[in-house]
Amino acid sequence: MTDYQHILVKTEGDVVRITMNRAARRNSLSADHLAELLDAFQRTGATDATGIVLAGAGPVFSAGHDFADVAARDLLGVRSLLQLCTELMRTIQSVPQVVVARVHGLATAAGCQLVATCDLAVAAASAGFALPGGKGGWFCHTPAVPVARNIGRKRLMEMVLTGDVITADTALDWGLVNQVVPDDTLDEAVDALLARATRGSRASKAIGKQTVYAQLDRPEADAYGIALEVMAAASQLAGAREGMAAFLEKRHPVWSD
Amino acid sequence: MTDYQHILVKTEGDVVRITMNRAARRNSLSADHLAELLDAFQRTGATDATGIVLAGAGPVFSAGHDFADVAARDLLGVRSLLQLCTELMRTIQSVPQVVVARVHGLATAAGCQLVATCDLAVAAASAGFALPGGKGGWFCHTPAVPVARNIGRKRLMEMVLTGDVITADTALDWGLVNQVVPDDTLDEAVDALLARATRGSRASKAIGKQTVYAQLDRPEADAYGIALEVMAAASQLAGAREGMAAFLEKRHPVWSD
Amino acid sequence: MTDYQHILVKTEGDVVRITMNRAARRNSLSADHLAELLDAFQRTGATDATGIVLAGAGPVFSAGHDFADVAARDLLGVRSLLQLCTELMRTIQSVPQVVVARVHGLATAAGCQLVATCDLAVAAASAGFALPGGKGGWFCHTPAVPVARNIGRKRLMEMVLTGDVITADTALDWGLVNQVVPDDTLDEAVDALLARATRGSRASKAIGKQTVYAQLDRPEADAYGIALEVMAAASQLAGAREGMAAFLEKRHPVWSD
Repeated sequence: MTDYQHILVKTEGDVVRITMNRAARRNSLSADHLAELLDAFQRTGATDATGIVLAGAGPVFSAGHDFADVAARDLLGVRSLLQLCTELMRTIQSVPQVVVARVHGLATAAGCQLVATCDLAVAAASAGFALPGGKGGWFCHTPAVPVARNIGRKRLMEMVLTGDVITADTALDWGLVNQVVPDDTLDEAVDALLARATRGSRASKAIGKQTVYAQLDRPEADAYGIALEVMAAASQLAGAREGMAAFLEKRHPVWSD
Repeated sequence: MTDYQHILVKTEGDVVRITMNRAARRNSLSADHLAELLDAFQRTGATDATGIVLAGAGPVFSAGHDFADVAARDLLGVRSLLQLCTELMRTIQSVPQVVVARVHGLATAAGCQLVATCDLAVAAASAGFALPGGKGGWFCHTPAVPVARNIGRKRLMEMVLTGDVITADTALDWGLVNQVVPDDTLDEAVDALLARATRGSRASKAIGKQTVYAQLDRPEADAYGIALEVMAAASQLAGAREGMAAFLEKRHPVWSD
Repeated sequence: MTDYQHILVKTEGDVVRITMNRAARRNSLSADHLAELLDAFQRTGATDATGIVLAGAGPVFSAGHDFADVAARDLLGVRSLLQLCTELMRTIQSVPQVVVARVHGLATAAGCQLVATCDLAVAAASAGFALPGGKGGWFCHTPAVPVARNIGRKRLMEMVLTGDVITADTALDWGLVNQVVPDDTLDEAVDALLARATRGSRASKAIGKQTVYAQLDRPEADAYGIALEVMAAASQLAGAREGMAAFLEKRHPVWSD
């Protein structure tokens, strides 16, 4: 395992747990922290793991960008930091694994962006979510990108303009998270959801996940143009062949890919 | 009436009821079945009917693609099947009639896609919905296209990654269906919604329905570019003229188009 | 203050209240009325105000287009009217102020479009919302554009096809408004939401609001392309500098922009 300074990476069977571990800085996303997260997702993406849990150590999930790291940067320096952050988000969506955010405490700004970006999210009942830049001096422009793609427009505008914290129940109602559970059952809920979400052919699901992100936010005809071609090609892979054969032969499938 | 093998088509007044009638195969969508549905929608589209009800005979609404039909096909064969399926979806949205899905039992994979594609949907309280490909070997790529355009992204990912069934109440909460009613009132609820949805000028509504689908999923300025031109042109049609005249003259309108 | 015939414009501290004042015509949007609203938003946009409240005098918020004004127009005449209307909608989203719709009574057709277009909306519990064109002769093509970007597709289709009124509670559930409050607390609720939504650097928020509208409804990678560049540039503005400095120095920020 790489010698990380800011994160913990632990493999348990088919699941890799990536934990932001800058508790004293509320898991804020300095450039070094982002680079380690990106590296961990890229390395895990190249393994046979089927699931990834993204969590935070200490009192909160993540407070977003680290102002101590941002304040001294000029435009190109900030741009470079945001490109690194965006590359992390893109990678979370492109790795073949199912990625679940395990959210406790607070997920704010780019921390909330991580929740919005992960494929699935489970929140502790006491968790809160905010895009606070708009009530300060630096608007949450990039966090608003994936958050907008999880919740409705009026709700997004309320989050980015007021900057106020919404509760886990509101996040569930708006579709920002998949489940809200009592705080002391968070880990088992994450594991249970991940177990349900990682069944089947790994190759089929990896292609499926990536194709969904490719077809979203496009006119429906364009989306079909993408999904149809991928689905036709995917029908010829071992997983599809085995799944259909098992169904027709009334037996349990055995996945080889 | 055309001599169909897999579907029933029945005209009652202004409403055409198209019923998938392969109960023994859980109304799965073989190429022949798809071709008959497409033909029925195209023929009905050319009539003066104002509404179409899409239903399924037997225990479920539809189980999606028929693996017995898919398993033997090569890539181009599957591609051809998916193109036929996509053409059916496109036709449901382009016919001038209001199309309501009457959903009971289960609507899975391309069956769930049909529900997501119809203009409106009413579900029996006991109905369930699933995109199960992801927990098998062939991911629900194309069904995810219209489902994504009805529900939020996290909810879509939960459906496609877990493959599990969601209840009718969850489908209502997420916006996949318009109403959930007790099973024994399903037909009357469908009829009541269709009656409310087919009032007014038929030509105006047909253009309206098609324009909504054209403007969705585009940047707002592009959407206005489409909607504005169509709305200006539509203001000169008989229906618009009559509607405004009746309003200003405080009388009931009489639609000629 | 300009001598308006159809609207009232009142400045209270940092907030400008623009009130549609054609109560006898249910605040319908004649060309003259639209032109005054556009002028008021453009003028207010050039001031240092931080918030705008859009309200309606009399029994309803707004009944939409004025058929007496539309009925006599030819295609180019209606097109010109709709372009004026669309320009108003675009301006509401491009002014630097946070715009809140204060909705009571009914908001129908282009009146409902105004609600969907404002950044935020608070509704009286007795308020209703409808896109009634589809049950008449002139479909609500352009109102459907922003409404579709607030609520789900099935819900949009129900509104445009049936034309029926939805309650304030349904509008809240679907995400068309941010809050529903008892009728007699509407003004205080609007003021409280606006106070929360106008904190922080005014310049930062103005850029933020406009960038959100620019990135919505685009593929996520395109949205990041916009949001990232703006956010990097915005990091160099006085507001961002002050916000980060105040945070790091553990003091209250003082906004100069």
